[in-house]
Amino acid sequence: MLLQHQTWQEVESYLMRSTGIIMPIGSTEQHGPNGLIGTDAICAEAIARGVGEAADAMVGPTIGVGMAVHHMGFAGSMTLRPSTLMAIMRDYVLSLARHGFRRFFFINGHGGNIATCSAAFYEIYAEWEGAIGTRRAEGDDLRCRLANWWDGKAMGALSKEVFGDDEGSHATASEVSVTQFLLPETIKQAQIDPPRAPGGRFHGPADYRRRFPDGRIGSNPGLASPEKGRRFYETSVPELAKTYTAFLEEKV
Amino acid sequence: MLLQHQTWQEVESYLMRSTGIIMPIGSTEQHGPNGLIGTDAICAEAIARGVGEAADAMVGPTIGVGMAVHHMGFAGSMTLRPSTLMAIMRDYVLSLARHGFRRFFFINGHGGNIATCSAAFYEIYAEWEGAIGTRRAEGDDLRCRLANWWDGKAMGALSKEVFGDDEGSHATASEVSVTQFLLPETIKQAQIDPPRAPGGRFHGPADYRRRFPDGRIGSNPGLASPEKGRRFYETSVPELAKTYTAFLEEKV
Amino acid sequence: MLLQHQTWQEVESYLMRSTGIIMPIGSTEQHGPNGLIGTDAICAEAIARGVGEAADAMVGPTIGVGMAVHHMGFAGSMTLRPSTLMAIMRDYVLSLARHGFRRFFFINGHGGNIATCSAAFYEIYAEWEGAIGTRRAEGDDLRCRLANWWDGKAMGALSKEVFGDDEGSHATASEVSVTQFLLPETIKQAQIDPPRAPGGRFHGPADYRRRFPDGRIGSNPGLASPEKGRRFYETSVPELAKTYTAFLEEKV
Amino acid sequence: MLLQHQTWQEVESYLMRSTGIIMPIGSTEQHGPNGLIGTDAICAEAIARGVGEAADAMVGPTIGVGMAVHHMGFAGSMTLRPSTLMAIMRDYVLSLARHGFRRFFFINGHGGNIATCSAAFYEIYAEWEGAIGTRRAEGDDLRCRLANWWDGKAMGALSKEVFGDDEGSHATASEVSVTQFLLPETIKQAQIDPPRAPGGRFHGPADYRRRFPDGRIGSNPGLASPEKGRRFYETSVPELAKTYTAFLEEKV
Amino acid sequence: MLLQHQTWQEVESYLMRSTGIIMPIGSTEQHGPNGLIGTDAICAEAIARGVGEAADAMVGPTIGVGMAVHHMGFAGSMTLRPSTLMAIMRDYVLSLARHGFRRFFFINGHGGNIATCSAAFYEIYAEWEGAIGTRRAEGDDLRCRLANWWDGKAMGALSKEVFGDDEGSHATASEVSVTQFLLPETIKQAQIDPPRAPGGRFHGPADYRRRFPDGRIGSNPGLASPEKGRRFYETSVPELAKTYTAFLEEKV
Amino acid sequence: MLLQHQTWQEVESYLMRSTGIIMPIGSTEQHGPNGLIGTDAICAEAIARGVGEAADAMVGPTIGVGMAVHHMGFAGSMTLRPSTLMAIMRDYVLSLARHGFRRFFFINGHGGNIATCSAAFYEIYAEWEGAIGTRRAEGDDLRCRLANWWDGKAMGALSKEVFGDDEGSHATASEVSVTQFLLPETIKQAQIDPPRAPGGRFHGPADYRRRFPDGRIGSNPGLASPEKGRRFYETSVPELAKTYTAFLEEKV
Repeated sequence: MLLQHQTWQEVESYLMRSTGIIMPIGSTEQHGPNGLIGTDAICAEAIARGVGEAADAMVGPTIGVGMAVHHMGFAGSMTLRPSTLMAIMRDYVLSLARHGFRRFFFINGHGGNIATCSAAFYEIYAEWEGAIGTRRAEGDDLRCRLANWWDGKAMGALSKEVFGDDEGSHATASEVSVTQFLLPETIKQAQIDPPRAPGGRFHGPADYRRRFPDGRIGSNPGLASPEKGRRFYETSVPELAKTYTAFLEEKV
Repeated sequence: MLLQHQTWQEVESYLMRSTGIIMPIGSTEQHGPNGLIGTDAICAEAIARGVGEAADAMVGPTIGVGMAVHHMGFAGSMTLRPSTLMAIMRDYVLSLARHGFRRFFFINGHGGNIATCSAAFYEIYAEWEGAIGTRRAEGDDLRCRLANWWDGKAMGALSKEVFGDDEGSHATASEVSVTQFLLPETIKQAQIDPPRAPGGRFHGPADYRRRFPDGRIGSNPGLASPEKGRRFYETSVPELAKTYTAFLEEKV
Repeated sequence: MLLQHQTWQEVESYLMRSTGIIMPIGSTEQHGPNGLIGTDAICAEAIARGVGEAADAMVGPTIGVGMAVHHMGFAGSMTLRPSTLMAIMRDYVLSLARHGFRRFFFINGHGGNIATCSAAFYEIYAEWEGAIGTRRAEGDDLRCRLANWWDGKAMGALSKEVFGDDEGSHATASEVSVTQFLLPETIKQAQIDPPRAPGGRFHGPADYRRRFPDGRIGSNPGLASPEKGRRFYETSVPELAKTYTAFLEEKV
Repeated sequence: MLLQHQTWQEVESYLMRSTGIIMPIGSTEQHGPNGLIGTDAICAEAIARGVGEAADAMVGPTIGVGMAVHHMGFAGSMTLRPSTLMAIMRDYVLSLARHGFRRFFFINGHGGNIATCSAAFYEIYAEWEGAIGTRRAEGDDLRCRLANWWDGKAMGALSKEVFGDDEGSHATASEVSVTQFLLPETIKQAQIDPPRAPGGRFHGPADYRRRFPDGRIGSNPGLASPEKGRRFYETSVPELAKTYTAFLEEKV
Repeated sequence: MLLQHQTWQEVESYLMRSTGIIMPIGSTEQHGPNGLIGTDAICAEAIARGVGEAADAMVGPTIGVGMAVHHMGFAGSMTLRPSTLMAIMRDYVLSLARHGFRRFFFINGHGGNIATCSAAFYEIYAEWEGAIGTRRAEGDDLRCRLANWWDGKAMGALSKEVFGDDEGSHATASEVSVTQFLLPETIKQAQIDPPRAPGGRFHGPADYRRRFPDGRIGSNPGLASPEKGRRFYETSVPELAKTYTAFLEEKV
Repeated sequence: MLLQHQTWQEVESYLMRSTGIIMPIGSTEQHGPNGLIGTDAICAEAIARGVGEAADAMVGPTIGVGMAVHHMGFAGSMTLRPSTLMAIMRDYVLSLARHGFRRFFFINGHGGNIATCSAAFYEIYAEWEGAIGTRRAEGDDLRCRLANWWDGKAMGALSKEVFGDDEGSHATASEVSVTQFLLPETIKQAQIDPPRAPGGRFHGPADYRRRFPDGRIGSNPGLASPEKGRRFYETSVPELAKTYTAFLEEKV
């Protein structure tokens, strides 16, 4: 159930039975020699839609560009400054809160978004609950949660089984597989050399490019396939749907 | 050619032959009793993709939520503050400018975005050309242009022919038709009463809701049909492709 | 009745009978070889004062510097970033709203301000009506309106009659005339060559200067005269006074 | 020589011989029972123009609304947040710096502006000289200076002579006199009771109103007259003209 | 070697041999019934000083208030909005970068700071390397790193050995011990009931207080002692000194 | 009584008997050849603690970095932009106001902070009292006050007696003495040449360094001694304690 495919009266009806909404957030950044620049947005959006169906939940519009400063050394990468991303998330959440939404479940496709999303949640709570300053508290019932589609026990096990140490941490074998499953027409033929990219930490964008010359970190996306992508997709969706439902039912 | 479907090496190649990019911008806001909340984002994105194909141009990620403060009286509407939208547009344009893009052709699906986009363009020019402050000018070759998909001579004529005075100015018969053409599975059965909505000006969100109780302004979207939507789509795409090409070729 | 010429007790009395106020907004930017840098501020202020007398309305202080990024290639031009202008307009409107003013009628002297003013109005409505975030709505009765002094039917007809195609769109024959009428001691002798400046669109400040080397767009201000200025002034004031009164009386 | 009364070519000529400019800054706030709301803007502007003539210097547009948060308990008072005023001053100074102006002499009409102006100067220096962050230094030759029109030795002596302890510190006898001299048609008949207002410190706007019920602090503006105003005006102008000239000639 | 205890000439000398600096960052927030509000600032500062001595490195001033929105339900807790903390970190880092510092090693005392610090680092990299916008890159050699004093292998082992499951995750037994070691005169006698606090996740400040009524999460700080604190302190310092040195020596 | 050394329950108790808090604010900037970079923070913190004891008042965490843009030409100096410092002060004051603190007594160690602090107070009052915009007033009882430790009648007399014209205005003989008294282990042997530094005004950081090559203004800190420092400390503390108490008792 996509918010963008409803009328406003249909949203009014939905709010009678639920205050939860799923918000996909991705990124638009290089994903190595055979990964799509939109990988993180594509995966987050598709999995969010799957979760929305599985959990009979509303799915909001995708935040397609995220915090990808460190990828800016590669053509086509886009980024928001962390402060801009925080402003967007505030406006998204508080727009919907005006209508009665109270549980915001962000399905995230990009590790680089995690810290900024967490900061954004506290900026939102500070405003909503009147924790600093003179803005009046609206109550204390607004909750945000971030869930990465690749997290969860079953996902970890699947990754280990299918790719082992070739999974890596950027332009991973699994995320490239998921996009190949979702968009088989975009599968790229590209040389992946060395098969497994070097791993390690990094600092700013220039440092990143120096350490990881083709953009990958620790992964061998040459092992990706649509069929493997299907397995990841089909494992992630029900696991996240369960997490979403638990989030809605959380007491206290 | 979607930016999100390319690898970074493919973007590097594209930049050898063109510095132009098409950027869809829409909105997520009520569109009356039978219009989708995502109408403006859906139309802008689909038409931008069509123009991208027609003009062999790169198409960037869609800005799916726009400036819709005046629609906030209706459930499901989302908005960015104008200042947030300006920050996003700056980060989008200047991220891509880092890689060499210089002609930004925004295809817009929402009248309410026009003013803020124009303000954003000047905020960007001020920074890029060093017009105020100490930021060094990068040159003077960066250009932004906003084109509404419903503008253009042929589009005006088509609207007049197909809907006459029933076109209206919000939740228009033509935009509802375009979404019905693009997403026939989302066609809504809803009572449209009165057939043609009242017209007129408005101020803030509460004033808007009072004047236009079901969200429409001056339109009769009961006349919408997928087939009519196809005609609007097919008229808009080539007209905008021509405008885009002229924008790239513009001298001086 | 200038706000700056009242005591605070006199403003208290005024608020008993009206919540309307006229706010002049201009710009400080080049106006071609014989136009004053202050043209837009001077015209907006003088006409606003005329309207204030005609409609027995309070007139606030003039915003003398506007959004003129595109004029920054010419000496003496000043500009605010759009974001700064939005901050000013918010503080002006909401300062006065604290005392009970509710109808803000901006008389504008500069086309370049229009988009930013519109964005500012929505930023103000969003805050005042609590449309996003946790700020409590103050009600829904605050209204802003922008009226350009050169708009209106009678003004269009007069321009066509007096200058025809020589009116132009920047450093127009009519605005130069109005300043000559208001400030005859500042009339400049300058070569206007070619008589009618080239027209067309433009992008950033460097592009503007390249296309319009003496600053004018499409105009022949060599035809300006104080007497013609008087006619424009005397046509604009009553037309705007009527618009202002209608704005105050607007129902719904 | 008013910037707003020049053409851009005339400003170009001026910059050949001087990089100095006088910038009037006032306020729009209550000034007691017989003082004008615009007192600070009116005095600063008139005296700045006088100084401009005396020193053959360019005079920029007046900042008519200043930092007057503490006066917001009285109808008609307007204020900018300190942060907004800082943004304006930055845009004003750096717009003009682009054209070559380097000495900014602010003539101030309002004590409440002093702190914010000082903060703004450092914000500007930090940016212009690249003291923090990555903005490149433009050089170190940009200088801002604030001069209150009522300061200076001769002014102090005159105040003591004419009003003694009745001068006060807000809605002063001398500033009311200056506006009466400049705008005799606005002289108000109002009861001033008690003749001399109470003095003392204050905190926020409500506290201010409680302590100073008619808005004055320590003054008896019932003693004001146009003739006294003339003396203050004529003492201030040459004293400030000398300070301005010294500022331009300052070595090191 | 504390920056605040040097003269500027001594800092100049230091910069000849090192571009590294240690920056303590803590928080000022409730730490349960017997924990000090300043626990996180006190620990971070003391350990940073120890590391500074061990590694012969400069130690900057402590950021004493951090991101503690979720603790605002308890008296005395202070917080910065995430956006304010990001602004501070930018100004700190880029001030010092102006003088030649290039390796910023933040020793952190508060889990709630981690996300915002990470966001701040990318905001800094984006500016320093010119990744977005027109700010010129200063090079790519500026690096920031955050190290929590309780992290590290030896620290984990020590915590497990000394406190096992009673360590907890807020107002931990180990951090209370460290403050008791550092400031024995502040040791509090307080009832800790139940001995081990409940654990779990939380959302905003009101939710936090409801779930954790005395402020602790999962810990039993009744087990704290100065002697245990000494062990934690003496384990943390050399481990972090090694990490700092490795950070300075990092190649690529 | 340091806030950081209390538990949250102890703060709750304190708030039963007082709503006052002392907030030290300093700076981290060059202080000439024998002055510590942390002079202003060290003095403000130590004196604030003394005042806290003398007046039985809570003392908050020190703001250790202030507004020192003009000192940025000297190694080791740090600064906040004025706008960042204003954001910090707002978050500090309004965090504590949430718990019931209402009287904020800032003890200041740096002249360069004064203007920004004053601007910050008005930004806070504007928000707290709802003077502009739609934020609801919280009441009008929140008060901020800045007291420089070197001000006060007894302090002026002591300075004149001990140092006469050698006191100066930056890196003063008295502040260097106070740090020598507080931290005798940090006393520096440095050549002070000339004994008394040149005096005068300055503009931006480069101008400052040119005029005052070793950083001092008008002072001879070669005359400093720990014993003299003790006298300044012991004179300042009781004088400020009296001012603090009067601030709390202030009526109206």
